[in-house]
Amino acid sequence: MIIVMKPQAKPDSIQKIVALIEAKGLEAHLSDGKDVTIIGVVGDKSQLLDQNIEIYDGVDKIVPVTESYKLSNKKYHPNPTIVKVGSTFIGGDELVIMSGPCAVENRDQVLETAIAIKKAGVQILRGGAYKPRTSPYSFQGLEEEGLVLMKEAQEVTGLATVCEVTSLDAVEAAVKYVDMLQIGARNMQNFYLLKEVGKTGLPVLLKRGLSATIDEWLNAAEYIIAEGNPNVVLCERGIRTFETATRNTLDLSAIPIIKSKSHLPIIVDPSHATGVRKYVKALSMGAVATGADGLMIESHPNPATALSDGPQSLNFEQLNELCNEIRPLAHLMGKKF
Amino acid sequence: MIIVMKPQAKPDSIQKIVALIEAKGLEAHLSDGKDVTIIGVVGDKSQLLDQNIEIYDGVDKIVPVTESYKLSNKKYHPNPTIVKVGSTFIGGDELVIMSGPCAVENRDQVLETAIAIKKAGVQILRGGAYKPRTSPYSFQGLEEEGLVLMKEAQEVTGLATVCEVTSLDAVEAAVKYVDMLQIGARNMQNFYLLKEVGKTGLPVLLKRGLSATIDEWLNAAEYIIAEGNPNVVLCERGIRTFETATRNTLDLSAIPIIKSKSHLPIIVDPSHATGVRKYVKALSMGAVATGADGLMIESHPNPATALSDGPQSLNFEQLNELCNEIRPLAHLMGKKF
Amino acid sequence: MIIVMKPQAKPDSIQKIVALIEAKGLEAHLSDGKDVTIIGVVGDKSQLLDQNIEIYDGVDKIVPVTESYKLSNKKYHPNPTIVKVGSTFIGGDELVIMSGPCAVENRDQVLETAIAIKKAGVQILRGGAYKPRTSPYSFQGLEEEGLVLMKEAQEVTGLATVCEVTSLDAVEAAVKYVDMLQIGARNMQNFYLLKEVGKTGLPVLLKRGLSATIDEWLNAAEYIIAEGNPNVVLCERGIRTFETATRNTLDLSAIPIIKSKSHLPIIVDPSHATGVRKYVKALSMGAVATGADGLMIESHPNPATALSDGPQSLNFEQLNELCNEIRPLAHLMGKKF
Amino acid sequence: MIIVMKPQAKPDSIQKIVALIEAKGLEAHLSDGKDVTIIGVVGDKSQLLDQNIEIYDGVDKIVPVTESYKLSNKKYHPNPTIVKVGSTFIGGDELVIMSGPCAVENRDQVLETAIAIKKAGVQILRGGAYKPRTSPYSFQGLEEEGLVLMKEAQEVTGLATVCEVTSLDAVEAAVKYVDMLQIGARNMQNFYLLKEVGKTGLPVLLKRGLSATIDEWLNAAEYIIAEGNPNVVLCERGIRTFETATRNTLDLSAIPIIKSKSHLPIIVDPSHATGVRKYVKALSMGAVATGADGLMIESHPNPATALSDGPQSLNFEQLNELCNEIRPLAHLMGKKF
Repeated sequence: MIIVMKPQAKPDSIQKIVALIEAKGLEAHLSDGKDVTIIGVVGDKSQLLDQNIEIYDGVDKIVPVTESYKLSNKKYHPNPTIVKVGSTFIGGDELVIMSGPCAVENRDQVLETAIAIKKAGVQILRGGAYKPRTSPYSFQGLEEEGLVLMKEAQEVTGLATVCEVTSLDAVEAAVKYVDMLQIGARNMQNFYLLKEVGKTGLPVLLKRGLSATIDEWLNAAEYIIAEGNPNVVLCERGIRTFETATRNTLDLSAIPIIKSKSHLPIIVDPSHATGVRKYVKALSMGAVATGADGLMIESHPNPATALSDGPQSLNFEQLNELCNEIRPLAHLMGKKF
Repeated sequence: MIIVMKPQAKPDSIQKIVALIEAKGLEAHLSDGKDVTIIGVVGDKSQLLDQNIEIYDGVDKIVPVTESYKLSNKKYHPNPTIVKVGSTFIGGDELVIMSGPCAVENRDQVLETAIAIKKAGVQILRGGAYKPRTSPYSFQGLEEEGLVLMKEAQEVTGLATVCEVTSLDAVEAAVKYVDMLQIGARNMQNFYLLKEVGKTGLPVLLKRGLSATIDEWLNAAEYIIAEGNPNVVLCERGIRTFETATRNTLDLSAIPIIKSKSHLPIIVDPSHATGVRKYVKALSMGAVATGADGLMIESHPNPATALSDGPQSLNFEQLNELCNEIRPLAHLMGKKF
Repeated sequence: MIIVMKPQAKPDSIQKIVALIEAKGLEAHLSDGKDVTIIGVVGDKSQLLDQNIEIYDGVDKIVPVTESYKLSNKKYHPNPTIVKVGSTFIGGDELVIMSGPCAVENRDQVLETAIAIKKAGVQILRGGAYKPRTSPYSFQGLEEEGLVLMKEAQEVTGLATVCEVTSLDAVEAAVKYVDMLQIGARNMQNFYLLKEVGKTGLPVLLKRGLSATIDEWLNAAEYIIAEGNPNVVLCERGIRTFETATRNTLDLSAIPIIKSKSHLPIIVDPSHATGVRKYVKALSMGAVATGADGLMIESHPNPATALSDGPQSLNFEQLNELCNEIRPLAHLMGKKF
Repeated sequence: MIIVMKPQAKPDSIQKIVALIEAKGLEAHLSDGKDVTIIGVVGDKSQLLDQNIEIYDGVDKIVPVTESYKLSNKKYHPNPTIVKVGSTFIGGDELVIMSGPCAVENRDQVLETAIAIKKAGVQILRGGAYKPRTSPYSFQGLEEEGLVLMKEAQEVTGLATVCEVTSLDAVEAAVKYVDMLQIGARNMQNFYLLKEVGKTGLPVLLKRGLSATIDEWLNAAEYIIAEGNPNVVLCERGIRTFETATRNTLDLSAIPIIKSKSHLPIIVDPSHATGVRKYVKALSMGAVATGADGLMIESHPNPATALSDGPQSLNFEQLNELCNEIRPLAHLMGKKF
């Protein structure tokens, strides 16, 4: 931690800060510059957590030097994490595609989807049973009934399954039926829920919040891992910006940043990011070439009648075409698919 | 709802859309423009909820005409809502200030605060017992023990109290001790939690999400009111933008917009918005002059040792000074304080 | 300047940085932390301008300690700047309102406006002769003919005048006719133009760019002052965010931040910020109470037929009403109006 | 154009709007909905440009149906534009890479760069002679002297050249020396400058503004084409968002959007977007796979001593490696390189 003093800071004020640091058993290193004095703090700075140094007299600002996340930090865990979901491995040499409808609607829809996407080469079936919707008047999901259908689809096709959870009730139900729990963008900082999915030990797909920085995202992952569950996969799904041509702005630079700061795998969801079906293929290609470990692509037997997010869903012909175009690119990137 | 067709849309495609609309018992009004055809849909458009018209052939875009929120919409409820909290009324002719520490730390801190802020003229005591923190290693709150202390402060001073809730457990505990429940910015779209606080019937302080539009915010309020609980107070607390000189960007234009679109009261939290103590007074003045129904101001007996958000907290002398400056402004705005 | 090394930085890499710093005649202060080493650089760091230290081996990041703007920086010029425009003083104990049409359209419009706004108490007439418009097919302004009309209005009413300039040609014409030059939001980082208005010595109204940070804004002011022209007035006019309920998001926190970092006056333009007439009064009140030195309010004899930005313009009755409501607030804030 | 009336709009107000529309020789189509009336305007709506219908009584909002840009709009010009720069074609079946230093510093630097990048396979040399810099104290470019060096590099290597222009003076100088003019992000809405580069007839590289929407960007292109110069190449270089891990957020979704809305070529500049050298290669790959027509990559003989933007520049070994990795990907995408 570095403490930058104001230009006019009095020696007395500087001395008080130094005394405070030393009283906590830490060392203070002073650099007297032409304009300002800076104080480097050496030692375990958690000792200073109960001090708000920025409001002491003469202090201009505090500059943190180390990240607050440890368990999700590559500096301390240099080897990439590989997360096993069913019989699929995310974060290794395989490109993993998750696909399926935004919301589980009925048995036929789920089974038809599972069979079709498996044929296209997809490894994991997604399908929402608990839907966070902006309006209370939109379809909210089939809840446990939806989970049962996901389980059946898993048994029929052997595909692993992932479902979003939005409450403790949902977590308790989902662990009985699915292979991976998803934390949606709106719940990325629902810390209570993060702890609960952490406790399950199941693989967790952690979507980036609409306005979450990379650092906040890795801190959210930290909540899960701190419960003893290292099986976290990150999912970039667009951030909120001023641009309205797409629903959100897909931030593919998150891929090399995450690869540089963390050991966790990262996949990309171009369907939710753009909200527009015709942009999904181009951005899927872009994500894979940028180094993503996988993709999440919405698909539906009949997007025109999907109860949730139909306009961004591919039909199975389109999904199949996408998988066929992705395949040689995945191979070029050294990934199996 | 208006459906805008593409310039090159075929008569056949247009006919299909019209047929679909009419099949649902609605009317389709066609306007053939120089470049494009637009179709106005007349009738109860919830009939079209299971149709994703934007992916039909020839469709360019869908333009919604009416807002999706009804119960929080001024169009349908023109009279302002006044929310009673303890013996205080928010949204009427009173300016209401909530103050207290970000986090409840111990008995002395809470009681000292309650007594000091009451003297300054504050009507409601705030204090967090369940703290959503970016890092799992930050102080997470005293939980029920904190609620008990809030209750004691309420009994000693007669001040009403407000506490943030972050889970069903927290809701169940809080209803026993406090007068108003707060939904924090990070949980504004935790729809599960919104329903739960809706069911309690207690007044709810609904903070705006960091990246929530006004429409999404009013839809979140709709979730609470739809459970039969009309006692919602909105709280603007800054949105996330590119500017880093403040923690968030306080959006005071939210005040006249909310007053124009909704009947719900709105207060402003300049402490969390700026994250910087020295900007709090100026923006408190600005908020009141813009028409806010109240303020939420962090205060602490000793901000330098506050366990949460100390750098933005006022000490009691500063809070008192702020209240004294606000008073004549409140009167100028026609508000009692 | 502070150089933060990576945790795994080799002693050799650290030594290279130290040697580089010392070779430039500066001092390097090392602090060896538990995790990382930080190097404080003491001396005139402009010596390091031609070195990109962040790409040396082992370097994690560079933290600047002092701002890059000097002439607009309060640290070095603690007394507030007061800018004289005609016979009006901005930045002192007067609240200054600028008003008039977005675009000068014809003689009648300008004269009628000048007379009406003077009666309402406005001190400065605004009117655009060179209009930066998103589309090339929108009205682009009367150019020099418009300036001539502004001059006539100035002579008739005695009001000072301000006009936007968008090119060297416009600057050369405007200096002959108006009292103050305006740099619009889109040209805030048109550094060539900033230098040209700097050279004129005329007062400059510098609008904040749509996506400009406070620091970039003060650096833009620095360009003008560095040409020997200290007469800069800043104008907050909304920044670009995700919110679409207003055209831009008015950032009133810019007022206390500017007052804390700079000695320059700051006024607020709620008309362009919101783009909606009905929100202008509330935010004008908010701006004055937050501490603005003045306001810029669009007005027009007949907003319904204004050639530019009519929907946000007030008619003269509305402007008069706004001035009447502002007056007691200005007095409360200790300002003459 | 669609006019949406308020729920409580009186028949009289509706009638007034209809009369206004018909008085301009246009047709008004009414749809009376359950809640609101909407009015479709049919005919040449430029007739309504001098009317601000949104402020008429009873009007809720105006919804534009057609884009304001025509010449850059794919709807009216379905065939892709191919822009010839020197002997290179952008927008066709070739992947075009522009590379070179942010700023031209001296003869050796430019010639060494030109020779090295040509060897790597790059087709166009970039180099700034007029540098827009945030601070007036940063290096501002060699101006005409820099252009002369670019010309020499062009003659020695045969590479085409591109230089940024920031004023009419710069345009007048640049047309004598270089093959393509660049409009930088900060000048994207410097409409005066857009017209000037339009008049030259030279190919123009139009960078996206930091906070420009896709629509504003295409309107900026419209300014250039409207001067009779169809040779516009768009360049995505990151937009300003809340994320600080990169300098800007590269918006690769701009590629499919531009391909869907316009006929103009689009290239991507990952160097300026990220500001960080180590992220450039991954995002270059991503851009090409998403469908970019080319890349702009900063390179420098010795990034550590570059006078501008060194931290994001590649050295020639890194550039060569990037080109070698891009090559098979370009071929997979059906592009020559």
